[in-house]
Amino acid sequence: MQTDLTLGIDIGGTNIAFGLVNQEGEIVFEGNLSTAEVRNPSLLPELIEEQTQNYTFREIGIGAPSSNTFSGMIENAPNLRWGVNIPIVEYFENYFKVPTKLTNDANAAAVGEKLFGAAKDFSEFVVITLGTGLGAGIFINNEIFNGKFGTAGEFGHVMVDKDGRPCGCGRKGCLETYCSATGMLRSIDLLTSPHKANSPLVELENPNPLDIFNAAQQGDQFAEYIIDFTAEKLGYWLANFACFSNPEAFILFGGIAKNGEYFRQKVDHYTQANLLNLYQGKVQVLSSELHHRNAAILGAAAYAKY
Amino acid sequence: MQTDLTLGIDIGGTNIAFGLVNQEGEIVFEGNLSTAEVRNPSLLPELIEEQTQNYTFREIGIGAPSSNTFSGMIENAPNLRWGVNIPIVEYFENYFKVPTKLTNDANAAAVGEKLFGAAKDFSEFVVITLGTGLGAGIFINNEIFNGKFGTAGEFGHVMVDKDGRPCGCGRKGCLETYCSATGMLRSIDLLTSPHKANSPLVELENPNPLDIFNAAQQGDQFAEYIIDFTAEKLGYWLANFACFSNPEAFILFGGIAKNGEYFRQKVDHYTQANLLNLYQGKVQVLSSELHHRNAAILGAAAYAKY
Repeated sequence: MQTDLTLGIDIGGTNIAFGLVNQEGEIVFEGNLSTAEVRNPSLLPELIEEQTQNYTFREIGIGAPSSNTFSGMIENAPNLRWGVNIPIVEYFENYFKVPTKLTNDANAAAVGEKLFGAAKDFSEFVVITLGTGLGAGIFINNEIFNGKFGTAGEFGHVMVDKDGRPCGCGRKGCLETYCSATGMLRSIDLLTSPHKANSPLVELENPNPLDIFNAAQQGDQFAEYIIDFTAEKLGYWLANFACFSNPEAFILFGGIAKNGEYFRQKVDHYTQANLLNLYQGKVQVLSSELHHRNAAILGAAAYAKY
Repeated sequence: MQTDLTLGIDIGGTNIAFGLVNQEGEIVFEGNLSTAEVRNPSLLPELIEEQTQNYTFREIGIGAPSSNTFSGMIENAPNLRWGVNIPIVEYFENYFKVPTKLTNDANAAAVGEKLFGAAKDFSEFVVITLGTGLGAGIFINNEIFNGKFGTAGEFGHVMVDKDGRPCGCGRKGCLETYCSATGMLRSIDLLTSPHKANSPLVELENPNPLDIFNAAQQGDQFAEYIIDFTAEKLGYWLANFACFSNPEAFILFGGIAKNGEYFRQKVDHYTQANLLNLYQGKVQVLSSELHHRNAAILGAAAYAKY
């Protein structure tokens, strides 16, 4: 029986994925719950134990939206419908009697890349999560950077166009309204191109970003334009973000980034083309090397250990 | 005789200002050299000693453009004409036999505010220097943040307008082409307004930013427009920069910022109006409290002690 395991939990708006992770970053057991069915989050430890009772683990790491690593609370997460302040760390520590740490998904991803993925050799890097929104997990001096209030690194809400797309935060032109899964889908509606009328994308009722990448691969020029538009904006802004912490690398993680080398190369091209002289040759754009489909579980487990 | 003094040196393109600073942040002696007359920087320690020989000091702090705090070298500073790599720390340590530290002017200003000025109570803040260009000195977790290569915090070169004003760095639309002394002077030429034709500013042969503030005070609406344009852009971008490190405060320092409460209030207004919800009520915009006209000497001295 393995005694060196960590329980990693990834709480999302749709699913709660969890798994037992060993020292090598392998997931030896995986489970899943529907978020909507967990009406009372204080019961979550018990529901997870029902599936993991054959294992023991040393510590627990939880990745969740709107989480405050300092207080151990999930604060006001609109997609979870669990109320205002959920003391999730307390629930787990009381139930399992092992140390439990909470962080947001981008920070979990960053620690995951540091321990098991593309950032093993870096002390200063930024993981950019490209999911429903755009998040950033920043490493400075070999440590995750939380900021004084636990809320540093909201790169998705840097406003890049004063009169740009309305954002869920109430402001306009935030980077994530362009460079994210939802941003790319908005681009299908909002971008214009001579090739748009012939594109299969405009016929789809519920398109997803994968449809855009597939269409591009089949030669659809409107799909290619959307990808190029997204990569150009992202690369331009990664070049700008280098002016903050001058990281050794930006690592693209999740959703869109999974579409691999084609997208990474484009983003890298536009990043390098826009870097300040001072930084040229010093900043790489890489893809995540957490290839498991539940990389977020790995990240959460890694955060518990870091 | 005082034995607790620090020699602070501020190396600029025009002048080299230096002074002996006591523990309370008072400058007890001040001297000055013309940068152009210092043909060989290895002679700088001797030239400074000619003026400071009545004093002893424990350490030396130097603020200079294009300086690398890790190597102790001034690297490739175009305004100094001293060649490529100047081992300025070595020159001073060999001559005076006391510990010597080098940093750029924005970091020196930040440490000055921390020890003697507006940032005494903050552990996370950003000093924005508004001089010929725009610089940033970032404090994270009560320490100056240099980044891995000593080049973090180049906020003046965040590109805020893709097709904006050409910048000395070779790129376009950098923040300092708008929000700096030179940026404001460019605004006299480049902005349009129904009040421009009647403005005294367009008649001046060599205007400086003070002329703009004076004209505004006398009711010139074009001057007011330039100030508002500058403050709005700066406030909008401070709000965006909050997404990096979520500082407790931005502190406006130098040149333009000396024009005081009027400008600070405008910048604060536009910063608060554009902050992400998460940060609202948590970020102040303050003015420098290093009131000495040679605040940069204080900053350099503070850096030596920090």
